[in-house]
Amino acid sequence: MSFMVSPEVLRIAEDIRNMKIRGASYIARSAAQALMKEASQSKAKNSDELIMDLTQAARILLHTRPTAVSLPNAIRYVMVRAYQLYEKGLLLEDLRSEVIKVAEKFIETSKMAVKKIAEYGSKRIEDGDLVMTHCHSTAACAILLKAWEEGKRFEVISTETRPRYQGRITASILSRAGIPVTLIVDSAARFFMEKVDKVIVGADAVAANGAVVNKIGTSLIALAAHEARVNFFVAAETYKFSPETMLGSLIKIEERSPLEVVDEKFLTENPNLRVLNPVFDVTPPTYIDIIITEKGVIPPGAAILVLKEEFGWFSAVRLPEFLKF
Amino acid sequence: MSFMVSPEVLRIAEDIRNMKIRGASYIARSAAQALMKEASQSKAKNSDELIMDLTQAARILLHTRPTAVSLPNAIRYVMVRAYQLYEKGLLLEDLRSEVIKVAEKFIETSKMAVKKIAEYGSKRIEDGDLVMTHCHSTAACAILLKAWEEGKRFEVISTETRPRYQGRITASILSRAGIPVTLIVDSAARFFMEKVDKVIVGADAVAANGAVVNKIGTSLIALAAHEARVNFFVAAETYKFSPETMLGSLIKIEERSPLEVVDEKFLTENPNLRVLNPVFDVTPPTYIDIIITEKGVIPPGAAILVLKEEFGWFSAVRLPEFLKF
Amino acid sequence: MSFMVSPEVLRIAEDIRNMKIRGASYIARSAAQALMKEASQSKAKNSDELIMDLTQAARILLHTRPTAVSLPNAIRYVMVRAYQLYEKGLLLEDLRSEVIKVAEKFIETSKMAVKKIAEYGSKRIEDGDLVMTHCHSTAACAILLKAWEEGKRFEVISTETRPRYQGRITASILSRAGIPVTLIVDSAARFFMEKVDKVIVGADAVAANGAVVNKIGTSLIALAAHEARVNFFVAAETYKFSPETMLGSLIKIEERSPLEVVDEKFLTENPNLRVLNPVFDVTPPTYIDIIITEKGVIPPGAAILVLKEEFGWFSAVRLPEFLKF
Amino acid sequence: MSFMVSPEVLRIAEDIRNMKIRGASYIARSAAQALMKEASQSKAKNSDELIMDLTQAARILLHTRPTAVSLPNAIRYVMVRAYQLYEKGLLLEDLRSEVIKVAEKFIETSKMAVKKIAEYGSKRIEDGDLVMTHCHSTAACAILLKAWEEGKRFEVISTETRPRYQGRITASILSRAGIPVTLIVDSAARFFMEKVDKVIVGADAVAANGAVVNKIGTSLIALAAHEARVNFFVAAETYKFSPETMLGSLIKIEERSPLEVVDEKFLTENPNLRVLNPVFDVTPPTYIDIIITEKGVIPPGAAILVLKEEFGWFSAVRLPEFLKF
Amino acid sequence: MSFMVSPEVLRIAEDIRNMKIRGASYIARSAAQALMKEASQSKAKNSDELIMDLTQAARILLHTRPTAVSLPNAIRYVMVRAYQLYEKGLLLEDLRSEVIKVAEKFIETSKMAVKKIAEYGSKRIEDGDLVMTHCHSTAACAILLKAWEEGKRFEVISTETRPRYQGRITASILSRAGIPVTLIVDSAARFFMEKVDKVIVGADAVAANGAVVNKIGTSLIALAAHEARVNFFVAAETYKFSPETMLGSLIKIEERSPLEVVDEKFLTENPNLRVLNPVFDVTPPTYIDIIITEKGVIPPGAAILVLKEEFGWFSAVRLPEFLKF
Amino acid sequence: MSFMVSPEVLRIAEDIRNMKIRGASYIARSAAQALMKEASQSKAKNSDELIMDLTQAARILLHTRPTAVSLPNAIRYVMVRAYQLYEKGLLLEDLRSEVIKVAEKFIETSKMAVKKIAEYGSKRIEDGDLVMTHCHSTAACAILLKAWEEGKRFEVISTETRPRYQGRITASILSRAGIPVTLIVDSAARFFMEKVDKVIVGADAVAANGAVVNKIGTSLIALAAHEARVNFFVAAETYKFSPETMLGSLIKIEERSPLEVVDEKFLTENPNLRVLNPVFDVTPPTYIDIIITEKGVIPPGAAILVLKEEFGWFSAVRLPEFLKF
Repeated sequence: MSFMVSPEVLRIAEDIRNMKIRGASYIARSAAQALMKEASQSKAKNSDELIMDLTQAARILLHTRPTAVSLPNAIRYVMVRAYQLYEKGLLLEDLRSEVIKVAEKFIETSKMAVKKIAEYGSKRIEDGDLVMTHCHSTAACAILLKAWEEGKRFEVISTETRPRYQGRITASILSRAGIPVTLIVDSAARFFMEKVDKVIVGADAVAANGAVVNKIGTSLIALAAHEARVNFFVAAETYKFSPETMLGSLIKIEERSPLEVVDEKFLTENPNLRVLNPVFDVTPPTYIDIIITEKGVIPPGAAILVLKEEFGWFSAVRLPEFLKF
Repeated sequence: MSFMVSPEVLRIAEDIRNMKIRGASYIARSAAQALMKEASQSKAKNSDELIMDLTQAARILLHTRPTAVSLPNAIRYVMVRAYQLYEKGLLLEDLRSEVIKVAEKFIETSKMAVKKIAEYGSKRIEDGDLVMTHCHSTAACAILLKAWEEGKRFEVISTETRPRYQGRITASILSRAGIPVTLIVDSAARFFMEKVDKVIVGADAVAANGAVVNKIGTSLIALAAHEARVNFFVAAETYKFSPETMLGSLIKIEERSPLEVVDEKFLTENPNLRVLNPVFDVTPPTYIDIIITEKGVIPPGAAILVLKEEFGWFSAVRLPEFLKF
Repeated sequence: MSFMVSPEVLRIAEDIRNMKIRGASYIARSAAQALMKEASQSKAKNSDELIMDLTQAARILLHTRPTAVSLPNAIRYVMVRAYQLYEKGLLLEDLRSEVIKVAEKFIETSKMAVKKIAEYGSKRIEDGDLVMTHCHSTAACAILLKAWEEGKRFEVISTETRPRYQGRITASILSRAGIPVTLIVDSAARFFMEKVDKVIVGADAVAANGAVVNKIGTSLIALAAHEARVNFFVAAETYKFSPETMLGSLIKIEERSPLEVVDEKFLTENPNLRVLNPVFDVTPPTYIDIIITEKGVIPPGAAILVLKEEFGWFSAVRLPEFLKF
Repeated sequence: MSFMVSPEVLRIAEDIRNMKIRGASYIARSAAQALMKEASQSKAKNSDELIMDLTQAARILLHTRPTAVSLPNAIRYVMVRAYQLYEKGLLLEDLRSEVIKVAEKFIETSKMAVKKIAEYGSKRIEDGDLVMTHCHSTAACAILLKAWEEGKRFEVISTETRPRYQGRITASILSRAGIPVTLIVDSAARFFMEKVDKVIVGADAVAANGAVVNKIGTSLIALAAHEARVNFFVAAETYKFSPETMLGSLIKIEERSPLEVVDEKFLTENPNLRVLNPVFDVTPPTYIDIIITEKGVIPPGAAILVLKEEFGWFSAVRLPEFLKF
Repeated sequence: MSFMVSPEVLRIAEDIRNMKIRGASYIARSAAQALMKEASQSKAKNSDELIMDLTQAARILLHTRPTAVSLPNAIRYVMVRAYQLYEKGLLLEDLRSEVIKVAEKFIETSKMAVKKIAEYGSKRIEDGDLVMTHCHSTAACAILLKAWEEGKRFEVISTETRPRYQGRITASILSRAGIPVTLIVDSAARFFMEKVDKVIVGADAVAANGAVVNKIGTSLIALAAHEARVNFFVAAETYKFSPETMLGSLIKIEERSPLEVVDEKFLTENPNLRVLNPVFDVTPPTYIDIIITEKGVIPPGAAILVLKEEFGWFSAVRLPEFLKF
Repeated sequence: MSFMVSPEVLRIAEDIRNMKIRGASYIARSAAQALMKEASQSKAKNSDELIMDLTQAARILLHTRPTAVSLPNAIRYVMVRAYQLYEKGLLLEDLRSEVIKVAEKFIETSKMAVKKIAEYGSKRIEDGDLVMTHCHSTAACAILLKAWEEGKRFEVISTETRPRYQGRITASILSRAGIPVTLIVDSAARFFMEKVDKVIVGADAVAANGAVVNKIGTSLIALAAHEARVNFFVAAETYKFSPETMLGSLIKIEERSPLEVVDEKFLTENPNLRVLNPVFDVTPPTYIDIIITEKGVIPPGAAILVLKEEFGWFSAVRLPEFLKF
């Protein structure tokens, strides 16, 4: 027996795969939206069929970008609740509307999260600060913009963030808001660290031990900050916390194309040379002072507390095996 | 009274200034060669005039690139000896030919130095090693090529070295010699460090306390190596050792154009944004295991021993004031 | 509309302001007592008026010493419960007597806390120990006195604790109880650390990440203890834990008068000289082994666990805005 | 009034005392079994007498090996539940059968725990790993065997573990399963650490601050791993977590006979020489990356979270005083 | 046979003993001056008697303050040369005048040393620096005053330096020269360290391994500087280097009177309380970046180089046994 | 053409090979003695033949134990001087007697060295010290025995030193001299380190960067001492300093038989199990406070200074190629 999923699910899945949809929060919200679309557009004739349609959609979405932590977390959020409602015996239309509400709730919570993070994080910015940031993180930028709006006056150093130069985006956004910004090459981070007061970065995933997975280079900056006794802050919504790591799994680090680093010509001219392009690295919890979440500001050692509360000691969700990520 | 210096001196000075001549060793040898040319082509009518011509040439050369340590060291090497010969009362033609010999000696010594460094350093490379390097250093490459010639089989990771990508040159040279090379972005250094066995880099200058001035990013890699208990080796000819630092001077870090980092368009579009582009950083001696010189392999703490032997406790060279760099 | 608060509230508020009432626990209990007095002496004619009177008293108390963390915590303890009772619809006299009970409960708990801390902490003192302490902390002294009563035989080093020499009080109290005490100047802490077995200090506040705010110099001693692998214990009642820090706030460090450090004459004779006198410093959690609370002995990373349990993820108390400290 | 306990209890108690029964898990399960036997074989004529018989049995078991943390934890697990059932007013036979069930449950849980730990822990083993282990731990071996079964290919270094050479047992077991094993003397741990990817050891006890008590030498290996940025994993069932440490107690380190280290002859020939033989040492939490428990993988800072959940803030079990270990 | 020494020697000896003459450089120069006086005023009838008179004077001076390193170094400087001249067979008046010259040379060199140190050290001060200093050191102050004269604009933090408040002298002198100075209590050093750019202190003695003996508290500040990656500079004339430490001796730390720390009344009221008042502590070489001497700027590891050059591998001076300090 | 060497040379060579002659100093002196025997017993008919006989003897000795650093150093000491004398044109009998004197001198110097080391090192032992030592070192024992003779009262912890238990020899010798000694297993080093005041060990070789090669386990103890801020002293005669390391060579670590670790039976029963038995490890200079040599007490960073003085920058001895070790 095969199921049809809504064309919108397929489109969103495709956009996640080819990175039109990118950034941990945007991916998460898009996945929730896809499930919402599936719930509303499913041709299911009863709740049994609807839950199967949703499961099918979830499965497709899950495989688009296996290394993105926010993706399975978003899907789990919606699907755990969908199964619970289904098992309670809800009829088709009730189930449909309830699942839509659940997905909407996730999306709204996600949006609110950045606002809360900005509010809590901006309290840590002080007049006269020199703040370093790396790559482009919506949450980290939100903190800096909020602090600036509140009248605090500080400066920012933004790394360019090779190979895709997302740091230039950060630099543009912040400098257009009026914040004095200095752009540097990534490897100059330690050169400038001596004068830096705090570092703020985003996160792609947070592990059970408080380790933070973020753009390649983050752990190097964290190390330099640690060496110089500079505070290192991570801004991360709680749906980026990875429950699988409680069960021993390591977060996989995505490898991208060499062509982001060099061009075809260089590769052709240097046939015996290999280019490796890992996208993320892992910053150990000892180099992180606090993680700013929408639930509050926590030390990295409390990541497990967040996970335990959201998922319990066992990731004991009654889901089909394949959804036990 | 004004003196004419040989046109070749002016040409070499110009080439150093506009960086046609670049790299610490090449600059040093070119300066020695310029003084050799001045000695042979000077129209001086007696030894008094010759020493004045040489002094004039030295002065011009010195101001071409004030932040290059090898430059004043080369000039001092030749000029200290020139003055000593002059004070001994040598007549014109004798002085001329002796100064030429002195300059030739410096050039030859400099060339031999890299060979010796390669010989000593290659003993530290072992089969199965994974060696990281940064930027492009003739001496560091010489060590790796020598070890490969000797039949040792190892792999190399080369950073790309923003903003000018000199690491690509290193990667090309080594891979063409048959060495398996992996090219990475600079900020991936810590990601790969866990598997690295040793790091080898060159140096632009070595200070009295063993601190090493080298391409921006070197100190960050050294820090990551230190964190992971990976050996960190510096290959440096002794004429890169800076005697001024014994007298309290700090080595100045050159700043280059923002246009090495971003293009004009980006600067125009982001008028409030500053780009800083320091060329070097300083690696503290605690992060350096050994410095491989042509005189032997020394711990960084012995840099002062090298300096003291070459220059004595006081940089007590009888030179016109302006040459007391 | 204006409310009259009880004269006893005003007197207590004044005593906190002028530091007749000082020390984190004493301040907290006095604030609770003031609210108890307000509850019993209020002229309110119904529960609406009583809650307004209490709110007014709370507001006055809150502004006496804005940097004392125990003060808002005590007030919040009483007022959150008062509002809950009020919203349940209790009538005047019931509300009055219940609020009195709540305040009494807080006071009693606070007193019991020191006893419990002494009990738990004394288990960590061993025969032959050399214990260093700094400033004067009731809880730290209670641990040492309890251990001595239990027959353990150890010695104590007490710093003098400039500028107000509270360490002399500690030294007197302990030596009068029979404990061999050595008094030293603050800057001799590292000189003696080599022989020290453990350090025990009190706390003015504990942040969400386990950082401890205590008398200036504490972090320096903690650093020296950390360097020498000496255990560093903090004794702190849980009402010193600061929930605001979960929401990003930093604890403000009070600055006191230069005249605590030098006399008028010195200031007059040296008009261009500034004297800064911060009262507290912040000891980072990595330098703290355990925090001894009345709830048990916790590692600093578990401070968030204590906070979360007492206040939840959001400090979501339904209080008038001004009480959301 | 005196009570008779079952001969099987006495036999098990004797076997724990003389170390026929050894290893933290085996001791724990044996103690639970003894209480199960007591429940089934007691001659008690009513529930009052049964609870007294059980208490007597518990008391005897407790004193067999005062330094083993798993022993009181097992007894507490059974007895707390026994008292609760007794206080509910269960009649003799119901109480008997319920207590048996409780003990069985503990035993089963303990067995499952190792399986779960193996499952979670094996996810951390990667192809090509070189894993160091120390002494003989069922849980650590289970992880390695599980990973090998799953097809992962790695190597193991096992220390010999003086004085009783339990590391040889580990080496034998693993090598017989096909895993390539290298046996080394304990003091060679740092020599080989450079090439090691991760260390996995078991635990005898885990303290509230995440410190791990394990075979002497563990903390030295952890230190060497920490120095070399090698991951250090501890495998520990949660009943090895010590609630007493939340109340300030330190875990006592057992001292064993000099004859485990030298023979009689040596002692006789060297009468003025003392041999000290501590069995365990304490690895501080900063040197531990994760603790793998049957409830999930936690950072050491979360040990308090496990304890708090199992025992609450106060170890507030209504038990006769002597059972408040 | 007894010898008479000049009354001026006795007076100077007394002034060193009762600390009218204090400060390492002043003591050293006074001792040299005493020997000069002895040489000029001795009633000796031949060179044999003169050398005996000088030896007697040296012996008396040596015992005035056994813990001052500069004292024996000054005496050794003069006496080694005196013996060499004597053994060459100089006649009375020649020996007399030569010894006077030697002593004058030492005094002059000592004065020049501070000037040279100021010159070398001031190059390390940069515009915008915040410099911390501790206690009162002529050499450290000379550096700061020289830099200020050269037009550099920076700020200074001076600790008060308990128990004798020498930091207030430093603060006064610098602020009167126009330098903005902040005075703090010693224990606030870490609180302010975050903003400090460099620390400069003097030295009472420098050991063969580069460890620096200086006013109590120096090592604590060095530790805090090290933690925060702040440069730590020591200003020390080379006659403060201690050759005895090359032969295994440790520098003795002087203990002074409790009455410098508390008054009589406090001691009387607290009869069981001990006050310990060590004057110096030892800063390990790892916390020191450079030592600024009159011979140049050296890393602490080069202290042995200075010693070896001055005294050779063996302190092989032909002196009466008692002078082999 | 073949040469006959004296049978005594062959016998000594054999004894070094089969380890009847063992211990770095004993090996060195035996090699010098062998050359002395060769000089006196050679049948050479002129100085040409004598130098060839000596060369032949040197070659044989060199190959007995290629990893012992003291062996080539002893041979080089004698042979460099022999060649110099030979090149001066000494006749047979003069050459013979001079070479004998040279060898005698080496032997005597070596013996004196231990005495000097004991003298310098014993100054570092203080009353009340707890000193840890590892393996059996003549020089380290000499220091402890000398300090005890001088009336100092201290205690010693000696590790057993697997696999050959040389620590028991140390423990026996010291305890028989009356020193209170505690013997522990190697892996208990960190357990006891907290109470230790200093560690003293010997050395098999010292490298140009101050790294010390000594019995396996030394670097682990040094690490634990470093962690606990315990002083770590190495006692080493200067002929153990390795000049080859100045030219980049690494000291080879000898591997010995598995049968030192386990017995035949164990190997037979566990055929897939490998036993590795490295004899030495390398302690990095950062973990060493001082090296006590017969030339004085030096920080490890000054090892190069010792080497440079003995051998110059280039190991420029005119020897047949094979003697350029």
